[in-house]
Amino acid sequence: MMTLERSTVESLVRQALARNFRAGSVSDGQRTSVAYASGSDKRAPQLVVNVSARHCHVTQEDLERLFGKGHQLTPFKWLYQDGFFAAEETVTVIGPRQRMIANVRILGPCRDHSQVELAFTESIMLGLDIPVRKSGDHRDSPGAYLIGPAGLARLEKGVIRHERHVHMGPSDAAYYGVKDGDRLHLRIKSSCSAVLEGLLVRLSPASKLEVHIDTDEGNAVDHPHATEFELFT
Amino acid sequence: MMTLERSTVESLVRQALARNFRAGSVSDGQRTSVAYASGSDKRAPQLVVNVSARHCHVTQEDLERLFGKGHQLTPFKWLYQDGFFAAEETVTVIGPRQRMIANVRILGPCRDHSQVELAFTESIMLGLDIPVRKSGDHRDSPGAYLIGPAGLARLEKGVIRHERHVHMGPSDAAYYGVKDGDRLHLRIKSSCSAVLEGLLVRLSPASKLEVHIDTDEGNAVDHPHATEFELFT
Repeated sequence: MMTLERSTVESLVRQALARNFRAGSVSDGQRTSVAYASGSDKRAPQLVVNVSARHCHVTQEDLERLFGKGHQLTPFKWLYQDGFFAAEETVTVIGPRQRMIANVRILGPCRDHSQVELAFTESIMLGLDIPVRKSGDHRDSPGAYLIGPAGLARLEKGVIRHERHVHMGPSDAAYYGVKDGDRLHLRIKSSCSAVLEGLLVRLSPASKLEVHIDTDEGNAVDHPHATEFELFT
Repeated sequence: MMTLERSTVESLVRQALARNFRAGSVSDGQRTSVAYASGSDKRAPQLVVNVSARHCHVTQEDLERLFGKGHQLTPFKWLYQDGFFAAEETVTVIGPRQRMIANVRILGPCRDHSQVELAFTESIMLGLDIPVRKSGDHRDSPGAYLIGPAGLARLEKGVIRHERHVHMGPSDAAYYGVKDGDRLHLRIKSSCSAVLEGLLVRLSPASKLEVHIDTDEGNAVDHPHATEFELFT
């Protein structure tokens, strides 16, 4: 019997999934990765800017309410940060006035809080007034119902617009001269150039340099046709 | 018989409609007018930033195809620029693959070209790849079908993302030191602060100072909760 390292298996799965993954689909939790050197500085780390489409995170308990006892998430597409994935599993999010959004993808692995992340365009469609929050901060946020094939999970709160942010590791933080919780600005060059100000720095030893913006921000700046991204203090 | 000046009639209609108009509705062609002094300069003209929701313009010929012979647009809500209005009339826009958006409002008066203005979020939903264009520039733009109660109008082209722009009159242009066709940047202070770069200046003798951004841009910067807008070169 052949034994494979976990990292080798993950890499093979990643490659196989990448072949089957149609870029640009809004419902896959994350859209269109674009990497550019930031400026001409050869020391500059590779900057990846990803658009996070609407998605949710769930606790193991909520996952079992939605998909049945003992259910485990199945990776559908590995994300840029190691160990994180868009799952095969999707749910329907129901807001007030019987409005709903179907096929909202769960991102894995499971967390210690359930949370729905929407762009403002989507929350307006749902009839929800949502705050801009970092992950896990559910102050003043509305709730929603999630519907899965096995049942329903009721979130008392946790529907948010996820505040745009930049993941990075220690060497990236040293390059930009920032620490966890600091702010950086993001310049996007495109037919709709803009500077998004004050992105939250999220420093973690294992993180790769990656900006997350949502679909409103991605569409505002024409992210798919952007020619340059630059992070600066 | 009492005779009223046209301007008096327009003012009365405007007041009556304003009382019945629910602010914040996405389908009214234009959303949430917010006015702030730009900076502390007392000479600064009043700056109004409006979000244009999806809408269309039609020729008189297309209007008659959609609503019947001899049909005239009925004003529903007067816009900030004198003489322009969101009409009572709405159409359904049909894109490829049988996808559609219902209740797309017509803005009046009629023009010499028919045109549909969508945010990228909406064009992606419709399955259309649209360019960023100023009004009337339909290069490389896709078409669509418009459906009204009396029939259908086929647009060969003219579905665009309307390039963000700033209307102004001669005194505003003098204040900012710009001429028609120049570019200005717009800074928005909010929970999602940003600088939108290179807004097209549209100078016209009768225009009032007003920025038009679309719903993607408005939602990206949390326009309804913005505390400050500033235009600068």
